[in-house]
Amino acid sequence: MVEPKIIVDTSTQGTLKDWRFGSEEAGDGLGRWSVSKRILSGGRQQGVEVIEVDNGALKFTVVPSRGCNVWTGCVGPLRLGWDSPVKEVVHPRFVNLTERGGLGWLNGFGEWISRCGLESMGAPCQDGKQPLTLHGRINYLPASYVEVRYEPGEFPRLVVRGIVEETLMFGPQLRLTTEISTEIGTRTLVFEDTVENLTDAPQEMQSLYHINFGPPLLGPGAEFLAPVKKVAPMNARAAEGAMKGWNVYTGPHEPGYTEQVYLVEPFGSAQGETEVMLKSGDGLSGAVVSFNLNQLPCLTLWKQEGPLKSGYVTGLEPATSYPYPKPVERAAGRVPKLGGGKTHHARVGIRVLVSKDEVRQALARIEDLQQATPQVAQEPLE
Amino acid sequence: MVEPKIIVDTSTQGTLKDWRFGSEEAGDGLGRWSVSKRILSGGRQQGVEVIEVDNGALKFTVVPSRGCNVWTGCVGPLRLGWDSPVKEVVHPRFVNLTERGGLGWLNGFGEWISRCGLESMGAPCQDGKQPLTLHGRINYLPASYVEVRYEPGEFPRLVVRGIVEETLMFGPQLRLTTEISTEIGTRTLVFEDTVENLTDAPQEMQSLYHINFGPPLLGPGAEFLAPVKKVAPMNARAAEGAMKGWNVYTGPHEPGYTEQVYLVEPFGSAQGETEVMLKSGDGLSGAVVSFNLNQLPCLTLWKQEGPLKSGYVTGLEPATSYPYPKPVERAAGRVPKLGGGKTHHARVGIRVLVSKDEVRQALARIEDLQQATPQVAQEPLE
Amino acid sequence: MVEPKIIVDTSTQGTLKDWRFGSEEAGDGLGRWSVSKRILSGGRQQGVEVIEVDNGALKFTVVPSRGCNVWTGCVGPLRLGWDSPVKEVVHPRFVNLTERGGLGWLNGFGEWISRCGLESMGAPCQDGKQPLTLHGRINYLPASYVEVRYEPGEFPRLVVRGIVEETLMFGPQLRLTTEISTEIGTRTLVFEDTVENLTDAPQEMQSLYHINFGPPLLGPGAEFLAPVKKVAPMNARAAEGAMKGWNVYTGPHEPGYTEQVYLVEPFGSAQGETEVMLKSGDGLSGAVVSFNLNQLPCLTLWKQEGPLKSGYVTGLEPATSYPYPKPVERAAGRVPKLGGGKTHHARVGIRVLVSKDEVRQALARIEDLQQATPQVAQEPLE
Repeated sequence: MVEPKIIVDTSTQGTLKDWRFGSEEAGDGLGRWSVSKRILSGGRQQGVEVIEVDNGALKFTVVPSRGCNVWTGCVGPLRLGWDSPVKEVVHPRFVNLTERGGLGWLNGFGEWISRCGLESMGAPCQDGKQPLTLHGRINYLPASYVEVRYEPGEFPRLVVRGIVEETLMFGPQLRLTTEISTEIGTRTLVFEDTVENLTDAPQEMQSLYHINFGPPLLGPGAEFLAPVKKVAPMNARAAEGAMKGWNVYTGPHEPGYTEQVYLVEPFGSAQGETEVMLKSGDGLSGAVVSFNLNQLPCLTLWKQEGPLKSGYVTGLEPATSYPYPKPVERAAGRVPKLGGGKTHHARVGIRVLVSKDEVRQALARIEDLQQATPQVAQEPLE
Repeated sequence: MVEPKIIVDTSTQGTLKDWRFGSEEAGDGLGRWSVSKRILSGGRQQGVEVIEVDNGALKFTVVPSRGCNVWTGCVGPLRLGWDSPVKEVVHPRFVNLTERGGLGWLNGFGEWISRCGLESMGAPCQDGKQPLTLHGRINYLPASYVEVRYEPGEFPRLVVRGIVEETLMFGPQLRLTTEISTEIGTRTLVFEDTVENLTDAPQEMQSLYHINFGPPLLGPGAEFLAPVKKVAPMNARAAEGAMKGWNVYTGPHEPGYTEQVYLVEPFGSAQGETEVMLKSGDGLSGAVVSFNLNQLPCLTLWKQEGPLKSGYVTGLEPATSYPYPKPVERAAGRVPKLGGGKTHHARVGIRVLVSKDEVRQALARIEDLQQATPQVAQEPLE
Repeated sequence: MVEPKIIVDTSTQGTLKDWRFGSEEAGDGLGRWSVSKRILSGGRQQGVEVIEVDNGALKFTVVPSRGCNVWTGCVGPLRLGWDSPVKEVVHPRFVNLTERGGLGWLNGFGEWISRCGLESMGAPCQDGKQPLTLHGRINYLPASYVEVRYEPGEFPRLVVRGIVEETLMFGPQLRLTTEISTEIGTRTLVFEDTVENLTDAPQEMQSLYHINFGPPLLGPGAEFLAPVKKVAPMNARAAEGAMKGWNVYTGPHEPGYTEQVYLVEPFGSAQGETEVMLKSGDGLSGAVVSFNLNQLPCLTLWKQEGPLKSGYVTGLEPATSYPYPKPVERAAGRVPKLGGGKTHHARVGIRVLVSKDEVRQALARIEDLQQATPQVAQEPLE
């Protein structure tokens, strides 16, 4: 009889240091898998807590110290994530969000999957009296509670559950409860996230999943594929070239290249389910991001195809909103407002493809969702 | 023979972790009391050091990591403090005072008694070339030295002594030495605070004790009672209603409610001693704040009667000044200036009332101090 | 046979706590010397890591938590460094560089030798879209790697090697590798510093060594001596007095005194080697700073002769640039630009003089370098 296991890693009762639990302890005969915790050393990552999940096929690292974002991942030799200028998992204490004109968030930006939100998640701006900084605060808030579960059964899985509070007096009072799970032996990870309005008054919230890929998935000839209902350039820079090849990668480019951002409204199933994909140049690998348009209606594609060592990366970013300044999103009706005590739920899956067949099948699913010819705007939405 | 005890908790020689000293160790036969230290876990309170004092009747928590403020208190089931949106004792490393237009102080605002000061303590403002942030820095500076003393004798008491330095080059050079004490078995705590000008040039300082109450002391029908010489609304919002019921609580109110602030000049005894009180709606409990007008001539009453879960709270705030921007206070002659090496001393007592009789006696003392009819201004001071 | 020794203190593999290595362990018969590590306690220095080097004649303290700056030094009773208002070795987590209008750097300024740079190192300013804060970030970045070496041989020496990364997405990608070394038994310490452009695109960098002295070297009658080719006041304040006595110290002065800054272009040898000196008022002691004009062409002299307890200090500051705002330095051609993968190297030596003879010899070397009459500008460079 295989027993379930719960490890409470962080709570008001204490925080564990190094630990490990795996297939040996579980005795489930499912091959080698493990989940473990360690605390990082050196430089700006001193004291950062990470939970490393290895389901036997997919490895990834959850960072409770950083809003339970996911630092990096891999499937065997296939690296997910990217080569950021930032190599260390920077501790929030070394990040000042107001720095650099509200771009301080970039000081610790090196992860595979960043969380953006919850009060706001777009470009730095003035929102009435309130200055808002790039991508919000959740990516630099430590989890108040962390538990790790091993759930045996028909589809045995590992779950990291974290609670992160973004609260202050006269400000947001939002609680993120995330469950990041993976089925043993699969190449999929899933976020099941709930944002709760902790107060008795209505509150806005925004959330974006900044899912970032560099080589080997990103490279010349790589493509972004999605069931596009509408796509528009975010700004004049993205509109250059009349949207020709907006979804194809041609870099890395020379110094002087500037990022391009595209705003996508995807088609979904009757239930709102949709999938988008990054396909490698050789068509032999890829990553599929799946989400529900009723939860996350907006998809931003970020192409940052500068030189290899300057942060060569693309982001597939499902979200409640586009990353324009919050007043723009509010005016466009893209900022959800939660009643007192109400919640916003989002499910995001990431599936890694490792063969031509898998890529072809993923493409077929996307084509099935493509209900009509994409509307390609030439002008920015704003 | 009962021996005194001194525990040096924090100094340049080291910082202790968990410890406890109490009536068992002292052997004083005074019933059960204790003082103990622990380090908090989880989220934004990871690593915060707290000293918990239980004198047998009154419990309270001093936070050396946060300028020796007092997180919460209680007398049996009577909770002092309030329900802040911020539940954790946030570590200073997670607070950026310049955030949110200088309102970053609110990121960790959840305590029963906050310290505001020492270079400044009011609203964010530009003071000449110097931007000042809300409530100053002292509430987020860790104590350099902390000792805890048990002093037996006729009036045996527990004392937490802390030293907090607010210093920088070309800036303030002020040292706070605080003694927070309580007599065993009483329902009173006392601050004896000294601010020293460490330099050889004159320096300004400001100090405010932000003493905050939510339910059960705060509620509909609760009253603020004081020997009022003058009272004025702080701004147009507080002036609404022509000052009718300015000292009575009617909330909690619906979302959309905005705080009201009143500026009080109390009467005092010939020696400057005065007392003000928060009385619960049923008149069966209350809290008295006593201070000396020669030290702290200004009393601010903060009414924040919004929805229960949005930070429903009132503050009784004795201070050197009112919480207008520092240039306003300077112009009004309300910013003390200390000569080189000079000090400012303040004594603030908080006494908890737990019966109708105690409330009645406290009220009688306040009425004794009421030497003339209060002058109630209809217009803000500024 | 005396063996070399390497202690890896900090890396991604871990960080050591207290340790010590010295002449006893080395068995080199060179008298008593040692190098040791400890972690500081209390207030804003809680958790700061320091490495204390005592070569038998000269003691100094390297702070890996603070960009491998040097906190203080002494030769027997001769104290190097100064009396800052800041007594603690403030941890970066308590320093917000954007505070006080970009002067937040001053919150932790108390060291003998500060590092300024690497993206910028001058006055706070707006550089295009980029706000820059005083003296840059390197002085508050923790080292990612620290090793300490004992190298026996003909000139046995102790070396602290540190790597500090100043990197962010869309920002600087610079790595400082410093070797701070001292020969056993000498009164000299040497920085050998390399700044590397980690990216594949060109990048600017700036670096300044803020070497600070208070009493006993600083005092009335003390002098700054250098082979001056040109000197100019930095601003109107420094230009007061028509540059008379610009290199002589007359303080400490009364409150109200304002700092004076002078910009020096020294003469050097054919190879660019130069030396500048602070000579004590009695001529019996001094400190020589040696550097190479091909690496560090600019020397700033900072005179802060205010009251003794308000930060009475002078700085001798060899640098790539002057401390004007970066756009000024760029326009003047004083901001080095490194090609992708390229490095900037600088060697700075500090030699302590403890007798009239040593002072006289140092003066003779400076006079040898004085190839022509100094050009003394009356007007600020900008």
